[in-house]
Amino acid sequence: MIVVKVGGAEGIDYEAVAEDAASLWREGVRLLLVHGGSALTNRVAEALGHPPRFLTHPGGQVSRLTDPKTLDIFLMVYAGLVNKRLVERLQRRGVNAVGLTGVDGRLLEGRRKTAVKYVEDGKVKIHRGDYTGTAERVNRALLDLLLEAGYLPVITPPAISYEGEAINTDGDQVAALLATTYRAEALVYLSNVPGLLAHYPDEASLVREIPVEKVESPEYLALAQGRMKRKVMGAVAAVQGGVKRVIFADARVENPIRRALAGEGTVVR
Amino acid sequence: MIVVKVGGAEGIDYEAVAEDAASLWREGVRLLLVHGGSALTNRVAEALGHPPRFLTHPGGQVSRLTDPKTLDIFLMVYAGLVNKRLVERLQRRGVNAVGLTGVDGRLLEGRRKTAVKYVEDGKVKIHRGDYTGTAERVNRALLDLLLEAGYLPVITPPAISYEGEAINTDGDQVAALLATTYRAEALVYLSNVPGLLAHYPDEASLVREIPVEKVESPEYLALAQGRMKRKVMGAVAAVQGGVKRVIFADARVENPIRRALAGEGTVVR
Repeated sequence: MIVVKVGGAEGIDYEAVAEDAASLWREGVRLLLVHGGSALTNRVAEALGHPPRFLTHPGGQVSRLTDPKTLDIFLMVYAGLVNKRLVERLQRRGVNAVGLTGVDGRLLEGRRKTAVKYVEDGKVKIHRGDYTGTAERVNRALLDLLLEAGYLPVITPPAISYEGEAINTDGDQVAALLATTYRAEALVYLSNVPGLLAHYPDEASLVREIPVEKVESPEYLALAQGRMKRKVMGAVAAVQGGVKRVIFADARVENPIRRALAGEGTVVR
Repeated sequence: MIVVKVGGAEGIDYEAVAEDAASLWREGVRLLLVHGGSALTNRVAEALGHPPRFLTHPGGQVSRLTDPKTLDIFLMVYAGLVNKRLVERLQRRGVNAVGLTGVDGRLLEGRRKTAVKYVEDGKVKIHRGDYTGTAERVNRALLDLLLEAGYLPVITPPAISYEGEAINTDGDQVAALLATTYRAEALVYLSNVPGLLAHYPDEASLVREIPVEKVESPEYLALAQGRMKRKVMGAVAAVQGGVKRVIFADARVENPIRRALAGEGTVVR
């Protein structure tokens, strides 16, 4: 099994991703596609007069403030527009894709975090009533049912809380959860950069490889800080969870998945 | 099998529909839910600065002009917002619902009508490049796969063309196609009126019953004209296609599905 996460940033070549995924699928490669939609969500939210707001957590991570109206917009863009246009692109290439959110069939279950801590003016504050959370459980039976019948699942947040509420959840983490569930051969993260960059946005500073056993050594420790911390630590956890390798690669090129599998990008193993 | 189509007009009580569907499902009634989203699509399209446009066909029917941008908005509202919020409502009540468009798994295939005839200023004109069509084939295998595994399918347009393009298609017709495919016990159309009204919008003019064999008699012929023509003729075709009865009923009340099945509304048999 190969799990491919297509990021939601500007510049992603969805046509190239669909073309590559379709050709791998026809060769018999088992795939799960996961996608984002954050940049488009921001644009639609602005257009609808409900501009995005982001919370900076005490640990430095940033997340989207998700009130019910934001979740409506999130559903429109992720589950409606991005998901169905990707499914359509695959169908046009003869691949029988089926799009699913984590809400469908309780595919991705997790805990809702109603109170979110954030930092403002140097003070830690609490935002209540948020619809965010972390996916913890996969309904693998539903995916197996579809895969065995020949359907390619195209998966997107939101997840669903144990109480049955749609919750905004991190797509990268969803992809890692799926990859560990299947002990995937590879987990590929496609975005609008060539991989993990030691000196963002300098593409010449691409890190070729991160050996999991050395991630705590001084050479790599600096990579696992700041904006890359979540990505690196998520990849390390995925490898420790049984995924053979995690590859961060470029989605602005032809054959982005094949190139990633050939080692172009940053390989964590 | 009972097929329930929930309309997309203002005033629909989705909570009551979900509650009723969940309670029937738990009693072992097999269901397919189909929904619309036209009123909300109009509002979102206005808000996004791409207001809806409608074409009046030479036969008097009216359809939404569907350019690629309109189809994007259609996907956002039908497949994203309405579908997932309905799935969520069912999940919150313990029903393992799965939302699908006709694009997913080629669930609803049909022919794209790229050139649409319409009337303007008394002249017949042609609009080209439209993404509309009629669903002709159901991927019943996918629905059976899900139903047998205990999932309740929640289905929405668009359909998919034979060439693999998403196409705006009439939800009422989709519901009828699904009902005839399963030779359903009942096909229930829920909307914001109590049924078919002889003198719209006078709710006291509710037509209690339309016997299929008498639809061409003078008494009923008047009903099968104008705005009700498509609904009446669609219902007649469904009954002729093997559906036991078609019921047009009110979605603004408690237990709307049970009331419809008990005969409240307009029954076509």
